Amino acid sequence: MHLRERPTGTEKIRMCPGTELPLPGKEMVDYICQYLSSVRERRVTPDVQPGYMRAQLPDSAPMDPDSWDNIFGDIEKIIMPGVVHWQSPHMHAYFPALTSWPSLLGDMLADAINCLGFTWASSPACTELEMNVMDWLAKMLGLPDKFLHHHPNSMGGGVLQSTVSESTLVALLAARKNKILEMKVSEPDTDESSLNSRLIAYASDQAHSSVEKAGLISLVKMKFLPVDENFSLRGETLMKAIEEDRNRGLVPVFVCATLGTTGVCAFDSLSELGPICDAEGLWLHIDAAYAGTAFVCPEFRLFLDGIEYADSFAFNPSKWMMVHFDCTGFWVKDKYKLHQTFSVNPVYLRHPNSGAAVDFMHWQIPLSRRFRSLKLWFVIRSFGVKKLQAHVRHGTETAKFFESLVKSDPLFEIPAKRHLGLVVFRLKGPNWLTEELLKELSSSGKIFLIPATIHDKFIIRFTVTSQFTTREDILQDWDIIQHTAAQIVSRHYALHRISSGDGARIPNMIVKPSSNTISNASQFYLDEGEHKTPSRKIVVQPKKLAVSPSTCVINQQVEGQGDPLDDCFPEDVQDVTKHKLSSFLFSYLSVQGKKKTARSLSCNSVPMTGGLEQCNPKAGAADKRESHTNAKILSRLPEEVMMLKKSAFKKLIKFYSVPSFPECSIQCGLHLPCCPLQAIV
Amino acid sequence: MHLRERPTGTEKIRMCPGTELPLPGKEMVDYICQYLSSVRERRVTPDVQPGYMRAQLPDSAPMDPDSWDNIFGDIEKIIMPGVVHWQSPHMHAYFPALTSWPSLLGDMLADAINCLGFTWASSPACTELEMNVMDWLAKMLGLPDKFLHHHPNSMGGGVLQSTVSESTLVALLAARKNKILEMKVSEPDTDESSLNSRLIAYASDQAHSSVEKAGLISLVKMKFLPVDENFSLRGETLMKAIEEDRNRGLVPVFVCATLGTTGVCAFDSLSELGPICDAEGLWLHIDAAYAGTAFVCPEFRLFLDGIEYADSFAFNPSKWMMVHFDCTGFWVKDKYKLHQTFSVNPVYLRHPNSGAAVDFMHWQIPLSRRFRSLKLWFVIRSFGVKKLQAHVRHGTETAKFFESLVKSDPLFEIPAKRHLGLVVFRLKGPNWLTEELLKELSSSGKIFLIPATIHDKFIIRFTVTSQFTTREDILQDWDIIQHTAAQIVSRHYALHRISSGDGARIPNMIVKPSSNTISNASQFYLDEGEHKTPSRKIVVQPKKLAVSPSTCVINQQVEGQGDPLDDCFPEDVQDVTKHKLSSFLFSYLSVQGKKKTARSLSCNSVPMTGGLEQCNPKAGAADKRESHTNAKILSRLPEEVMMLKKSAFKKLIKFYSVPSFPECSIQCGLHLPCCPLQAIV
Repeated sequence: MHLRERPTGTEKIRMCPGTELPLPGKEMVDYICQYLSSVRERRVTPDVQPGYMRAQLPDSAPMDPDSWDNIFGDIEKIIMPGVVHWQSPHMHAYFPALTSWPSLLGDMLADAINCLGFTWASSPACTELEMNVMDWLAKMLGLPDKFLHHHPNSMGGGVLQSTVSESTLVALLAARKNKILEMKVSEPDTDESSLNSRLIAYASDQAHSSVEKAGLISLVKMKFLPVDENFSLRGETLMKAIEEDRNRGLVPVFVCATLGTTGVCAFDSLSELGPICDAEGLWLHIDAAYAGTAFVCPEFRLFLDGIEYADSFAFNPSKWMMVHFDCTGFWVKDKYKLHQTFSVNPVYLRHPNSGAAVDFMHWQIPLSRRFRSLKLWFVIRSFGVKKLQAHVRHGTETAKFFESLVKSDPLFEIPAKRHLGLVVFRLKGPNWLTEELLKELSSSGKIFLIPATIHDKFIIRFTVTSQFTTREDILQDWDIIQHTAAQIVSRHYALHRISSGDGARIPNMIVKPSSNTISNASQFYLDEGEHKTPSRKIVVQPKKLAVSPSTCVINQQVEGQGDPLDDCFPEDVQDVTKHKLSSFLFSYLSVQGKKKTARSLSCNSVPMTGGLEQCNPKAGAADKRESHTNAKILSRLPEEVMMLKKSAFKKLIKFYSVPSFPECSIQCGLHLPCCPLQAIV
Repeated sequence: MHLRERPTGTEKIRMCPGTELPLPGKEMVDYICQYLSSVRERRVTPDVQPGYMRAQLPDSAPMDPDSWDNIFGDIEKIIMPGVVHWQSPHMHAYFPALTSWPSLLGDMLADAINCLGFTWASSPACTELEMNVMDWLAKMLGLPDKFLHHHPNSMGGGVLQSTVSESTLVALLAARKNKILEMKVSEPDTDESSLNSRLIAYASDQAHSSVEKAGLISLVKMKFLPVDENFSLRGETLMKAIEEDRNRGLVPVFVCATLGTTGVCAFDSLSELGPICDAEGLWLHIDAAYAGTAFVCPEFRLFLDGIEYADSFAFNPSKWMMVHFDCTGFWVKDKYKLHQTFSVNPVYLRHPNSGAAVDFMHWQIPLSRRFRSLKLWFVIRSFGVKKLQAHVRHGTETAKFFESLVKSDPLFEIPAKRHLGLVVFRLKGPNWLTEELLKELSSSGKIFLIPATIHDKFIIRFTVTSQFTTREDILQDWDIIQHTAAQIVSRHYALHRISSGDGARIPNMIVKPSSNTISNASQFYLDEGEHKTPSRKIVVQPKKLAVSPSTCVINQQVEGQGDPLDDCFPEDVQDVTKHKLSSFLFSYLSVQGKKKTARSLSCNSVPMTGGLEQCNPKAGAADKRESHTNAKILSRLPEEVMMLKKSAFKKLIKFYSVPSFPECSIQCGLHLPCCPLQAIV
């Protein structure tokens, strides 16, 4: 492999530096083009196990240079088999993390220049382009003038951070410092850390996990407040919490409002929270990580009502705006609040006229910073505002299209309102059905989805990500989902028939013939609402689990008494079923009564394929090939995986990502594909 | 410009996505090649003022797409005039921030894939390559096995962070959490923030500014300890501080030891600090940001003695290892200490067997992360360990060569031992001479240097950065430095002759003819040590400053009584002189008695050219053209710049960067240029 001896190229040592870049550089350009053009045809999630790569790499670095041919060849051999293809139109997990050719070109240039922009002087163009482009972006989103660098009355401005996680932390640290300085006026001799112990911050229980992390780092207490029926944090709830905490002697300091939560893309009520923060002296930070991009379209700005009260605002062009990661826009109303937080000499930096230039090192946690504004500049110019708007509208319309497909099938329900490009759905009935659906979809590798829970319901998130997603892609995805669902339903039904003689009690059961077709499968279900199918009494029998001596029994569904499967388990049977399911390696257990799961959702750290079934080797018994595969996987996995506890796996299925955006009246762009790789003539 | 109407390219909308990348992509590859091949010929620092770019950009983003030709053309028109060329062989400021073609190619691929590697499952290849390459790198540097992912007895591993700043913070937060959990055993009901108020951490007073920033963020008290005559933190000093602080009721928790400080590349004594940290229960973190790369050469590893006591270690391949920013290697002995710090569910993550895969989101502050290991992998393979060693040795030898040039000129002195690629030097005599030298060198734009102070001496740092730096480059730089120094010396001397009748007292002065040649200028000075010139009594007369009625007078230099200029000012005259100098916009004031300046050194946030003389418009009076230029610059600068206070400018001249490495016996590589753009046949 790549350890073999190669000529070291000493004969070229005297060549003009850089002359060897063009050939591999152009080869890489071609490879990238080919990769992005055909990514749709790749399996979106890899079929590998933890540790897959180790055997393919030497234990130590090579002593001698390796050839470009070897290295280049290893991309397909070693790297690609383990890549999740985030640019695939069949990638529906998390939120988008898109790239585009202007973005790639901008970063190629930035990486070649490789200047560090910690101060203006360390590379003036780096700071100045960022200031100008951040002003462009603020205007594109309709943010207030107070966030502009170049505005007569503004003390604020925008900066590119690495992530929304860091932006939330930066905002919280600035709020903390500001409040501590206020407290020091009356308590000049109290230690800052002691003052800090009295501070408390707020977010909704739907807020991203990074808000909790910011609390851990800052040691500011973080209270996660309940949301309303639309998963939105309301003013009344905040006001009540502030009053309670003041009565307990605490000092409320910070609110992180989310525009577009991770779970279902819900929106906190800025117009209610803003005036309260203003009146009570709390720093209002807005996390609009995913949804922020949508504000380029005026019709999506209704959720920005109240933005005039915000102290800081963050969103990710690196999500939906086709600027590749990392690129987080962060705006602040008062830049001196950042200076006094991060400057190693606060006295100097608290002075509003202390410098003629902006030194962004005082706006962030690290010192050094890349020339990130180049890719943002290239993207905005290459598309122009109109095409970026069309892109958002196209993604939203595509999600609407998927939503209409789900709604048309009575097997499924949409348990929360769709917003922007995120549709959440589930199979009607008990959670394990949807869990099994997700498991099988994931193991196919053809589509990547992740779960969440709302109101104890296990749901699947479907985000339209790629700018190249077509109706045909969506139809293909939906076909897989529908087909898989039908198989699950019919399998359980068939299994019941096979196992009905083994001691299970099956009261009032109506036996239906096994079926592999979607339309037939749909008939197994009663539905409610507009898609109601003809009433029928049904029972769905979960597949018998080898680890348990008892067979799970499904109660009779009484016609007209709500969702057929929601209530088909008596309390004790549900518990037994859950116990069995928890013995799966990949146990999508809904966390009963814990909304927190929706807040800090997370992603499985072990693969969804293969290994998922290892704890239940007989799960695939009907298929000998599958069983054999499982056994092989089993033998390759470390022993400790087998010993994992239910509690650990509850954590393993959490996913981490950031917010999204709501449905609005969209008046254009439906059939306008916005192709970033084709933006310019 | 780029706002004009362009065809929107709708006719291409149906083309295969990606088909438009090759052309601009290859154009960019050619541009980058051309740029990097000829960067030596560019002015290294730009000749621009704050706000230069604004007039060249529209106020708002374009609504319609712009053409690639327009965007591409603006690189040279708008961007390059404001860029500091960090890849130039004449870039000697800060520390290196190098790139190389394997690094660029690796990131092109990473950016195209654009996967987010927060968990193993979110893109297995991203996590796995990083684990393997971090093991390679640890072995390359000779780090202990406890830092390896793949080692039977290791609970540790390496991860790529964005910066050393973040790594220091991560280490401090982990140490803090660990200590707080220990304290909670006996004080379970005490608030974490209250416990935190008792913690104290240590670093040398030469440590990087990011250590102070980490203290501000964590609210852990940070004590900066004095160093020995080699700028090294010693065990005895630490022990004394720990004892004192324990007596004050504080809880020592963390030491950040620096290997290669920013100011002069000094090394803390790990072998003394390590056992103390071990015995006293302190987390030992090592910041080897710059110097770390040198450990690929075994002959530089003597400063790693004591590494076996380290809890964590960080260095920047993004500095000297030709992997472009960002790329910081961070290793930790016990990964569960990170998990319990950053996991939103510490219970799960404290369990050593809780997962079969590594989820790097628990190792860092942000959630999301790029596929950074690709560029590191490409670089290590493309060069091989041997060429990376040769590169370090070449840089070190080049610095040695520069050092020998400085030593050969009796005008100059080297006030601290050279280590690795960093040489510090100054003009003998009062600080203002060196300050003026730096100012003039900077305004030339031909060379970029930054200052530091040691023991109240104003010094200039000269770092060999680029892998393409040749002896010819160094000779050219030295010629500029020597020539400029000679001009300064002769100008002041000539000025004295012109102004000697205006009331200045010049006791015992020996008048020498004005001269512009280096050799003549050198004769003006007495020297000590090996380069001692024939003894002569001399006086150097500082140029009369228009802002002061009195002329500065230089005392007689008594032969054989040390450096001629160090003692040539009586105390009061020195003060007057300093007062005058402080009225310069760019006042390189040495901060008397404050070693802190050496610790958190920083970079001017306003340009060194033009504006530097604005507060003393008559400084260039002898040259009418220069005076005219100054007046023009003056009129362009914002008013507040003129109002800046001395204290503000003390801060403005601080620079921020990270450590370096020491002189060792180097046995090879002197004449072996290591050309990264030519690494592979």
